[in-house]
Amino acid sequence: MVVGAGLAGLVAARELGAAGAEVIVVEAQDRVGGRTWTRRVGGVPVEMGGQWIGPAQPYVNALARELGVETFPTEVPGRTVFYEGGSRSEYEEDEAVPFREPDAASEVREAFEALDGLAKEVPAGAPWTAGRAAEWDGQTLETWKLRHARSRGARFYIDLAVQSLYACEPRDISLLGVLSDVAASGGSGGLFEIEASAEESRFVGGAQELSVRVAEGLEGRVVLSSPVRRISQEHDGVLVESDAVSIRAGAVVVAVPPVLRGRIEYEPALPAAQDGLSQRMPMGAVIKCHAVYDVPFWRGMGLSGRAEGDTGPCRVTCDNTTPGEDAGVLTGFILGADARLWGQESADEREAAVLECFARYFGEEALHPRGYAECDWGAEVHARGGYAGVPVPGFFLDHGFALQEPVGRVHWAGTETASEWNGYMEGAVGSGLRAAREVLSVLTGAGFGQGDLPGKVDRSRGRPRAGATGTGG
Amino acid sequence: MVVGAGLAGLVAARELGAAGAEVIVVEAQDRVGGRTWTRRVGGVPVEMGGQWIGPAQPYVNALARELGVETFPTEVPGRTVFYEGGSRSEYEEDEAVPFREPDAASEVREAFEALDGLAKEVPAGAPWTAGRAAEWDGQTLETWKLRHARSRGARFYIDLAVQSLYACEPRDISLLGVLSDVAASGGSGGLFEIEASAEESRFVGGAQELSVRVAEGLEGRVVLSSPVRRISQEHDGVLVESDAVSIRAGAVVVAVPPVLRGRIEYEPALPAAQDGLSQRMPMGAVIKCHAVYDVPFWRGMGLSGRAEGDTGPCRVTCDNTTPGEDAGVLTGFILGADARLWGQESADEREAAVLECFARYFGEEALHPRGYAECDWGAEVHARGGYAGVPVPGFFLDHGFALQEPVGRVHWAGTETASEWNGYMEGAVGSGLRAAREVLSVLTGAGFGQGDLPGKVDRSRGRPRAGATGTGG
Repeated sequence: MVVGAGLAGLVAARELGAAGAEVIVVEAQDRVGGRTWTRRVGGVPVEMGGQWIGPAQPYVNALARELGVETFPTEVPGRTVFYEGGSRSEYEEDEAVPFREPDAASEVREAFEALDGLAKEVPAGAPWTAGRAAEWDGQTLETWKLRHARSRGARFYIDLAVQSLYACEPRDISLLGVLSDVAASGGSGGLFEIEASAEESRFVGGAQELSVRVAEGLEGRVVLSSPVRRISQEHDGVLVESDAVSIRAGAVVVAVPPVLRGRIEYEPALPAAQDGLSQRMPMGAVIKCHAVYDVPFWRGMGLSGRAEGDTGPCRVTCDNTTPGEDAGVLTGFILGADARLWGQESADEREAAVLECFARYFGEEALHPRGYAECDWGAEVHARGGYAGVPVPGFFLDHGFALQEPVGRVHWAGTETASEWNGYMEGAVGSGLRAAREVLSVLTGAGFGQGDLPGKVDRSRGRPRAGATGTGG
Repeated sequence: MVVGAGLAGLVAARELGAAGAEVIVVEAQDRVGGRTWTRRVGGVPVEMGGQWIGPAQPYVNALARELGVETFPTEVPGRTVFYEGGSRSEYEEDEAVPFREPDAASEVREAFEALDGLAKEVPAGAPWTAGRAAEWDGQTLETWKLRHARSRGARFYIDLAVQSLYACEPRDISLLGVLSDVAASGGSGGLFEIEASAEESRFVGGAQELSVRVAEGLEGRVVLSSPVRRISQEHDGVLVESDAVSIRAGAVVVAVPPVLRGRIEYEPALPAAQDGLSQRMPMGAVIKCHAVYDVPFWRGMGLSGRAEGDTGPCRVTCDNTTPGEDAGVLTGFILGADARLWGQESADEREAAVLECFARYFGEEALHPRGYAECDWGAEVHARGGYAGVPVPGFFLDHGFALQEPVGRVHWAGTETASEWNGYMEGAVGSGLRAAREVLSVLTGAGFGQGDLPGKVDRSRGRPRAGATGTGG
């Protein structure tokens, strides 16, 4: 059985079902999709959570094709608004970012090139085995940034890239964590750039549609509104107790973020290393804000809806309009420390500040949307942050090996466990496939080779052992 | 009422009871004392958890006097064993540490002096208001160490100090977190030095005796073996649901480590900032190991039982013998990354490695104790690590203000919430007093001034506000 009807859990269940296993999914919320969630606001669909995919993401693309969920390109032509030090400018896609300091643009480019260089030394899926892992997991990305960017502009732009990509501040994430993602996605260009490969397309009907269709295929075997409280391992299986149902099964896939793993009770208790993992991957912080207008008025001004700024609440925005709808949607992200601060204000104050921010970027018309909606993922009890768990310094060295490691009949899925594209829908799908095949291998004794498992880490490579503990320093 | 019968929770209950409030304490474990726990091993008492106090710790000393729990000095005369790079040496208390590199000792001294200098700029109890808070909370202590110590010896010795003090690696803790503790305890000497003020004395009968006596004074109002699962706020009080009892009360003091706060369900759910706090203070990792011998044989060799080394499993040991008992007790600490690795080995392998380590320090006689016991605090389900929660980079900037901040009728205690001596018994006692007086102030409207509350943070000083979010960089 499966805990969690997000994309990872549902894909695991689908795969188990396709292999002939009886499967049931138990979900805490009253909907499927986890951190993908499509709502209607001002008469049009808007994406409250994950929404983008790219061409270098095979599993999620294959799933969409199988389910008949179509995609459309994200790109909106036009100039980007750039807001630095209280001053607004615009630039074309083929122009340099108009930093106030002349050195900033080249510093940003050189910094990303330096990251790419280091990432070449990081084995994808097992970053803790890199030769310089201790050095890189000993520091925050902030420390690295301060060494590699001198100008104010370059520093804020790197901040913005980290905030946009991880919904955290550079101080919150291990340098090794970033290098690991750069390595696994083929270079910083695919991760950090604005119209990057990871954001190339969106789903017709919204990203949640993938989960909705997989759940339909499971024909009633998804139990909603039933938080799982306790997982007991018995001599021949597991007992999973949730508010609405208790279920015995041969094995369980727990497909929730690491921090939420730790909030389930286990019998016997999780080993210290596994529980410690759940303590050291806090969720990013994001409030995703949408304003719906009668038309995408910024397009008439030659603007793409993209803004980049050094001032909150929304330091980054995009045009999130759905093709074929008249209404235009502007989406702003409140990220990292901004999200923590603005999350404490009233909804009215926050909305007013977001719209004023949009007006700074796109003019007064932005103050009068026909609809407004937001999602503070940190306030969602069954997510407790977004986009994903963030590896703090030391996480990979001490706990990385345990991300995928089953504990008896308890297996782990969720985008954070993915060796490639972790934090993305791609990682979620890949992790669900891997976990399902692990379970099938156990249940049937079929002995699926590790080569069959997407993103499966070969733990013989570099699982740390006590006997090998070196000296200090 | 109070959740958690550790020192903080029991002190809060005692204070509430003394003020005439009806009070009940609900505890998950089958004993009181939390992270203090005295067991008998080989016929003598040994301390599985916290055990030391110092003269600069007023609240715990006053409590001990009131309860009639006596103390005795920790110090054992004799030479310290020093083990570096596979080579064993000894040194007297008034000699320099015999590092292999000539510069190491002065580098260590200069590094601690530099920490003391920075700490003078950190307001005790509100480190996030320091002028350079963003710089210091943006980096790990590891980053700082690599800049301030060049020699291998100095680096391992700083590692050892951090491991000994926090049960974590320098990469696991924010520089600002360390500076905050140095500031609150009057300088690094009181924290880091070997026979430091914070370790000057021990309790006759063991540190748990404080909790046992406070619990006796509560006359049956402590419910054991009843984990709290859910706290609901109602319009005129709280409902606390635990396995054995459900209790309505006017207010509740939750006196558990931050990570365990997050594992209770709240209705309404905790605000994102409060839940985020529980995600960003992972527990340190420690396995405390005791070997009991017929006599403290190392004393006859002129040794104090203290060892310091760069090789696991126990990089630091001490003589933990109880005066008046014939038997000698050697205690070794497996700390930080060592604890995570050794925690995954079998108990037999671990015991053998610990005794071999003791034998390297104190000779072959150490291989044959008459009793052996250990506690892996990470495996204790109702502690999930030790000694305490460790602030990761960014913790204080984003969440520090929320450590003591009540959420409606839910108040917080526990050593991690203390403004002074957090992580120590002193911090636990102080936090319990503060939380009790907060509750009394609410329940009676008596308006206790903030000046009455030990370690109470004046949140008007520097609580971050969304409107004040600055620019990037």
